[in-house]
Amino acid sequence: MKTISENASFQGKQGVYSHASTSCHCDMTFALFLPEEAERGPVPLLWFLSGLTCTHENAMTKAGAQAWAAEHGIAVVFPDTSPRGEDVANDEAYDLGQGAGFYVNATQDPWQPNFQMWSYIADELPALLAENFALDMDRQAICGHSMGGHGALTLAMNLDGRFKSVSAFAPIANPSDSDWGRKQLTAYLGADTATWAKHDATLLMADKGFDGPVLIDQGADDQFLDLLKPEALAAAIAKRRQNAIFRMHPGYDHSYFFISTFMEDHIAFHADALYAD
Amino acid sequence: MKTISENASFQGKQGVYSHASTSCHCDMTFALFLPEEAERGPVPLLWFLSGLTCTHENAMTKAGAQAWAAEHGIAVVFPDTSPRGEDVANDEAYDLGQGAGFYVNATQDPWQPNFQMWSYIADELPALLAENFALDMDRQAICGHSMGGHGALTLAMNLDGRFKSVSAFAPIANPSDSDWGRKQLTAYLGADTATWAKHDATLLMADKGFDGPVLIDQGADDQFLDLLKPEALAAAIAKRRQNAIFRMHPGYDHSYFFISTFMEDHIAFHADALYAD
Repeated sequence: MKTISENASFQGKQGVYSHASTSCHCDMTFALFLPEEAERGPVPLLWFLSGLTCTHENAMTKAGAQAWAAEHGIAVVFPDTSPRGEDVANDEAYDLGQGAGFYVNATQDPWQPNFQMWSYIADELPALLAENFALDMDRQAICGHSMGGHGALTLAMNLDGRFKSVSAFAPIANPSDSDWGRKQLTAYLGADTATWAKHDATLLMADKGFDGPVLIDQGADDQFLDLLKPEALAAAIAKRRQNAIFRMHPGYDHSYFFISTFMEDHIAFHADALYAD
Repeated sequence: MKTISENASFQGKQGVYSHASTSCHCDMTFALFLPEEAERGPVPLLWFLSGLTCTHENAMTKAGAQAWAAEHGIAVVFPDTSPRGEDVANDEAYDLGQGAGFYVNATQDPWQPNFQMWSYIADELPALLAENFALDMDRQAICGHSMGGHGALTLAMNLDGRFKSVSAFAPIANPSDSDWGRKQLTAYLGADTATWAKHDATLLMADKGFDGPVLIDQGADDQFLDLLKPEALAAAIAKRRQNAIFRMHPGYDHSYFFISTFMEDHIAFHADALYAD
């Protein structure tokens, strides 16, 4: 693991690191905020999965998470959204290939060799973090924005017991039924939609739900509402009687101005779950 | 004036606007955060002047100011740091020309036609803001980072009565005696150092000081300490018995991670002064 940068931030440390990924077969970069408390012992870990076109950097610099993570003594990891590099497959579209990994393990060419983001986020990166930083891996929570909200919800519902709580900002809520989803799931997983089900938050919510609290924030003026399909997830949450808060915010759009506005609430929400026992 | 973008942010609105500048003879872009209170009447205005290489965007997206401005009901304007455009003079160096206006009115070629940032910030932009937004121009404060800290301090000390309070993150504190200063002041103002004095915070502090409170934050691990010369300003503040707080923060560098960490304090500091009477 290589240190790219470390900056003091809110009495803690904002680091950026890279490593040769065995899942994605390329160098991967991630950012990790460690609160001051990590100098004295392991701290809880919140994952923040980012959306289309983002790297580790967008949320690290624009979401304002460090202020609230420091207040609650929680670490935050910001992974990249896909494998990257000249030797890694790509597409001209912004929503496929590099920057658009969709948090799945690709089974189809040309994506299969590198696009193993599910394994990277579920297995490889947690092991690397546990080995190198003062993190209490028994206290993890997960959050994400847009494509990353999709990732957060699908990882949380599939990995039973891994995460104490899950939240999302404007998640891609029903990708099997959206142009943000069908295209990518077809490319990465193939045309057999049976393989898509574990990567659709609405279908997972209908099928099994989440054993913990869920928080979803959605801007009512989001320019991508037709692609996100929050109504599908909201209905599934209500039908399941899932422990959840779903908030629709008039005036807010899809941007980081929306995310930063409600980040305090999300981190406080996760802190409640992470410190519950 | 043209609206580039408006995003809901912390119950208020983060806008970006452009206009044809009569001072700089080019289109200029600025960002303005308006808190929710501006819907009901004029609100106080905090200026945030940015540093070398920055546009209006860096602090708008990375400083985390909106959270605290919203809390205190204060507007924040983020001007650009220089004139820009293909027809505007420039230099290959990052610290001269576009992105490096140094908040002076250039008298020397090739800079004189466009590089009139002092007039732009002191006169033109305030008039434009007063005309177009619900701002209480009798309640203004000013803040800045690095070159922008230099701008904030020099504007505040020269424009008697304009600003209730002034603060700076890692300001270029003594440009007449630094490579961040001599080069630019020579280029923009010429070799006669008598013309530089009103653009040097340390000399101004020694000569007249500021009629209000001053807050300076400096990272002890700032990679540019030798160029910033905080010791010169700290000595001038102490010698004058200026109403001031000068804080040296171990571990912090020159980045926006430093700025965002202490932004809450700066906005609270200005709020005290803006709401004092």
